[in-house]
Amino acid sequence: MNGAEALVETMLASGVDVCFANPGTSEMHFVAALDTHPDMRCILCLFEGGVTGAADGYARMSGNVAGTLLHLGPGFANAWSNLHNARKGGSGIVNIVGDHAGYHLKHDAPLQSDLDGVAGSVSHWVGRATDSSMVAGLGADAIRAARSGQIATVILQADAAWSDSGSGPTRATDPAPRPRPDAPRIAAAARALGQPGAALLVSGPALYGDGAELAGRIAARTGCRLIAPFFAPRIAMGAGAVRFEQMFYPADLNAQFLADLTRIVLVGENPPVNFFAYPGLPSTPDPAGCAIDRLCFSDWDVPGTLAALAEAAGVDGTEDIARIARTDPVTPETATGALSPEGIGRALALALPEGAIVVNEAVTAGAGIWPAVNQAAAHDRINNTGGSIGQCLPNALGAAVACPDRPVFAVSGDGSAMYQLQCLWTAARERLDITVVIIANRGYQILHHELAAQGAPAPGRNARAMFDIEDPLLDWVALAAGHGVPGQKVTTEEGLADALATAARTQGPFLIEATL
Amino acid sequence: MNGAEALVETMLASGVDVCFANPGTSEMHFVAALDTHPDMRCILCLFEGGVTGAADGYARMSGNVAGTLLHLGPGFANAWSNLHNARKGGSGIVNIVGDHAGYHLKHDAPLQSDLDGVAGSVSHWVGRATDSSMVAGLGADAIRAARSGQIATVILQADAAWSDSGSGPTRATDPAPRPRPDAPRIAAAARALGQPGAALLVSGPALYGDGAELAGRIAARTGCRLIAPFFAPRIAMGAGAVRFEQMFYPADLNAQFLADLTRIVLVGENPPVNFFAYPGLPSTPDPAGCAIDRLCFSDWDVPGTLAALAEAAGVDGTEDIARIARTDPVTPETATGALSPEGIGRALALALPEGAIVVNEAVTAGAGIWPAVNQAAAHDRINNTGGSIGQCLPNALGAAVACPDRPVFAVSGDGSAMYQLQCLWTAARERLDITVVIIANRGYQILHHELAAQGAPAPGRNARAMFDIEDPLLDWVALAAGHGVPGQKVTTEEGLADALATAARTQGPFLIEATL
Repeated sequence: MNGAEALVETMLASGVDVCFANPGTSEMHFVAALDTHPDMRCILCLFEGGVTGAADGYARMSGNVAGTLLHLGPGFANAWSNLHNARKGGSGIVNIVGDHAGYHLKHDAPLQSDLDGVAGSVSHWVGRATDSSMVAGLGADAIRAARSGQIATVILQADAAWSDSGSGPTRATDPAPRPRPDAPRIAAAARALGQPGAALLVSGPALYGDGAELAGRIAARTGCRLIAPFFAPRIAMGAGAVRFEQMFYPADLNAQFLADLTRIVLVGENPPVNFFAYPGLPSTPDPAGCAIDRLCFSDWDVPGTLAALAEAAGVDGTEDIARIARTDPVTPETATGALSPEGIGRALALALPEGAIVVNEAVTAGAGIWPAVNQAAAHDRINNTGGSIGQCLPNALGAAVACPDRPVFAVSGDGSAMYQLQCLWTAARERLDITVVIIANRGYQILHHELAAQGAPAPGRNARAMFDIEDPLLDWVALAAGHGVPGQKVTTEEGLADALATAARTQGPFLIEATL
Repeated sequence: MNGAEALVETMLASGVDVCFANPGTSEMHFVAALDTHPDMRCILCLFEGGVTGAADGYARMSGNVAGTLLHLGPGFANAWSNLHNARKGGSGIVNIVGDHAGYHLKHDAPLQSDLDGVAGSVSHWVGRATDSSMVAGLGADAIRAARSGQIATVILQADAAWSDSGSGPTRATDPAPRPRPDAPRIAAAARALGQPGAALLVSGPALYGDGAELAGRIAARTGCRLIAPFFAPRIAMGAGAVRFEQMFYPADLNAQFLADLTRIVLVGENPPVNFFAYPGLPSTPDPAGCAIDRLCFSDWDVPGTLAALAEAAGVDGTEDIARIARTDPVTPETATGALSPEGIGRALALALPEGAIVVNEAVTAGAGIWPAVNQAAAHDRINNTGGSIGQCLPNALGAAVACPDRPVFAVSGDGSAMYQLQCLWTAARERLDITVVIIANRGYQILHHELAAQGAPAPGRNARAMFDIEDPLLDWVALAAGHGVPGQKVTTEEGLADALATAARTQGPFLIEATL
C-alpha cells in the first residue's frame, strides 16, 4: 500500500468520505488511490475557492469534516480566502495539498513556491509528508485537528504518495476534550446575567439545535438579552426558532443596539468589534464601562458551558422551556410591482419550505431582505463569517451535499457571486437542489456607503470605475446557462414569486437574477 | 496631503499610471485619492487573480510596472497564484494592499488574517505602512523593487492612508544596476559556445527585440544551438524572428531534445528541470556529464551580458547579423472539416496580423496548434510561466492595455480559462481588442496524460469525476454573453476561419469556442 492509499484509507476509516477537489499532476497517485476507493465521494470544483468553501458549508451543516484536494502552492492560494472564512466560522477542514517529490524541490521547477508559507498563513495545523511512512499518521493527526474546528493541511510530497507506506491506514483518534470554564466563573457569569443591562452573546453551536435551546432557557430564567452576532456561521431561524437579537453590520447601529448594556457574557464568540475602523470612531461598539466576560472561547466546549451555565442560573427544565422566546411566524402580504429588497424578502419568505437552508451573502440588500425571511418557515441560515466575498455559492454546494433532502437557497449580491461563479457548474454536475438568487444591484454598492462613511467626497470617475458593474451589465441567466444551470431574470415581485415556484419544480439547481 | 494621496502621487511621479484594482472598505481613502488623480488609469477586475495577471501581462509587453489594489489578506490571497506566475516570469508588480488601522488590529475583526504571512510567501519585498509619514517612501521603495523585476507589496494600514503625511510624494529612484558576470567568465562562456555540443539557453529580454538579435548573432558566430525555454515569458515569433529551438513540456521529449549537448550556457534562465518528478526518472532533462554554466541569473543584466558575450565571441556586426537564423514564414494550406489542434493552428496562422500579441495557455492542444502559428506573421507570444493555470485571460487584459494598437489573441484550454473567466467582463468594459479562442476539449486533458505518465492505472469513476468537464458541457458563448462579450462556437476549420474574421471586424473583445 503506497502513501496515497494509506491516506485515503485513513480518511475513510476516520469517517471522512467526501472530498472536494481540484487536483493536478503532483496529486496523481492520490487520485489513483481515490479511484480505487469509490466509497470516497469526489466532487470537482472548477476553481479552488469553490473547493474549500464547499468543505466549509459541508462542515457547518453536517458537523463532519470534509477533505479537500489541492494542487501545490497556487492551488492552495486559490483556496485561501474561503479557508479564511471557514476559520472565522470555526469549520474544521482537512486539506490535502500535493507537492513535488522531495528530491525535486531543489530544482525550483515552475510550480514550486513557498507552499509551507502560504499554507501556514491560514491553517491552524500544517504537516509535510516527506516520507511515505509518515502519511497515514499525519492524515490522522490532521483529521483530529479538523474535528476540533481547525484548518488542517497535509502537504503530500509526490514521493511520499507513490512509495510504499510500509503499513496500513491509521484511524484518527478523538480530539482532546474542549476546555470549559471552571465552576466559580460559571457561577459568576450566571449571577451577572441576572443583573440589569446584561446580555448573553453567543455563537457557534449555541445558535441552533440543543445549544440554542439552552441559551434560550438561560435568557428566560435570568432575564438577560440574548444576542447573536451579525456573522453567525449557522443559525436556526424562522417559525419556532429560539429568538436571538441579531447584531448589525454598520458600526453606528451596533453602538445604538448595545448602548444600554452594562455587562456581556460571551459563549463561543469574541468581543464585539466593528468590521472596519473609521477615523475618529472607536473600534468596538460596546458602551464605555460595559464589562465583557470572555466566559467560553469559540474553540472551547460551548454546549457544555451552556449546560453548566443553565444549571448555575437555576434553569427549570419545564417552566423555562415554556418561557423561551421564540420567533412567531408571519406570512407577509403579497405585493406586486418593481422589486425592492423588501419585496425579495417577502417573496423568499412565502416560498421558503420548512427545513430549508438559506445561505446569505446579500451584503447591502440584506437589511431589506432578511426581516421577512426571519419570520418565515423554520430554516437554517448560513452567513459569511470572514468578510471575504465569494463564500455563498461554495457554502451552498457543501450544504447541499451534506443535506441532500433539504432545499438550499443561495442569496448573493452580484459582485460577491462573481467571485466563485464556477460553483454553478458543480451544482449542475452533482444535481444539487440549490436555488440561487442573485441580487443584481450592479456593483459593489457597499463601497459607495463605505466611501461616504470614511468621510471621502462623492465618488468621481475613478471611484465609479472601481465600484460599479454596469458597463457592461452582467447577464446572470446567460452565465448560469454557460455553466449548465437553467435560470430566469425577474424585475417584479410577482415575477420573483413565479420564478421561485419554477425553481421548486426544477430538479437540480436554478438561478434567478433579481434585478433591483 | 494624507498618506493615500502621497502614495498615489508617488506612483504617478514614478511613472506608474495604471492600476488594476479590486478595492474594499479598507482602501477607501486610497480610492478617494485615485479619484482626485484622474491621470491614474484604474481598471476594475471582478476577481483578484485578474488584477495581478493583468499587471503581469502589462509588465511583459510594456516593460513598465503597473500597480494593483487589493483588499486585505483575502484579496491578496486571491491574487497570489498570478503573482506566482509573474514572479516566475520576472515581471515587476507593485501591490497596494489595504489593512485595518493599526489600533484596530488587536481586535481580530472578521477580515483580519495573517496578511504579512500570505504577502511574504510570494512577494520579494513587503513593507507595512504603520504611519502616514512612511507611505510615500515605502511606495517609492516598492516601485524601485518592482522595476528590478520583483513582486513588491505595500501593506497600507487605513490610518496611514487617512492621516496627514506631513510631506509630499517621493519619486522612486532607479534600481541598482543589475549584476553582470566578470570578463573571465564571459570569455570562458564564449569559448565554450564554440565547442561541439554547446547550447545557449536564454530567457527574459533575450527572447525578443535587441536581446534576441544579440543571442542570434552569438549563435551565428559560435555555431552553438540557441534554445528558448518552453515557458518563455515573452518571445518574438513568426516571420523574420530570430529562430530559437524551443524546449518541450514532456520530460521524455526534453531529454531527447537535449541528448547531444555537452555544455549549456544560461543567460537569464535557470537550469532545465522537468515540470514534475516521475517515479524512477531523473529530475532534469540534460544528459549526464553535460556542463551547465549559470552565466547570468534571470535578475541579472541579460542584455549587457549578451552584448559582452557577443563581443567576447568576436561577433562581426555586419556579417553575423546577415547570418542570424530567422523564421521563414509559411502560409499553411487551408483545410476544411472537423477541428483538430493542427487545424486551429492553421486558421490562427492565416488570421494573425503582423504585430499581434498571442497569449498561450493551450496546454495539451498546444503541441498541435503552435507549429503553424510559429511560422505566421511576426508576433509576440506570451506563455504561462509558473504553471498556475488561469494566466491567459488576465495576461491578455494587461497586454491589451499596454499595447492598445496591437490585436491580442488569447488561446486557452477550457479548464484553464474557467479559472479567471471574470476577465471577460473587464475586456468588454475597457473595449480591449482581444480575440479569445477557447480550446474546448472538455476537461483537464493533461491530467489523463499525467495519470498515465505516473504509472497509475486507467482512470476510473473518481478520476474521471475530477478530470472531465463534460457533464454538463460548458457553453462558452453563453459565458461570454453573460460578461458582455459577443462570441461564436465553431466545430470546423472553415468555421473557425470565419469566426476569426468576424472577431477582426468586431470592436472590443470576441470569444470563439473551438470545439475539439
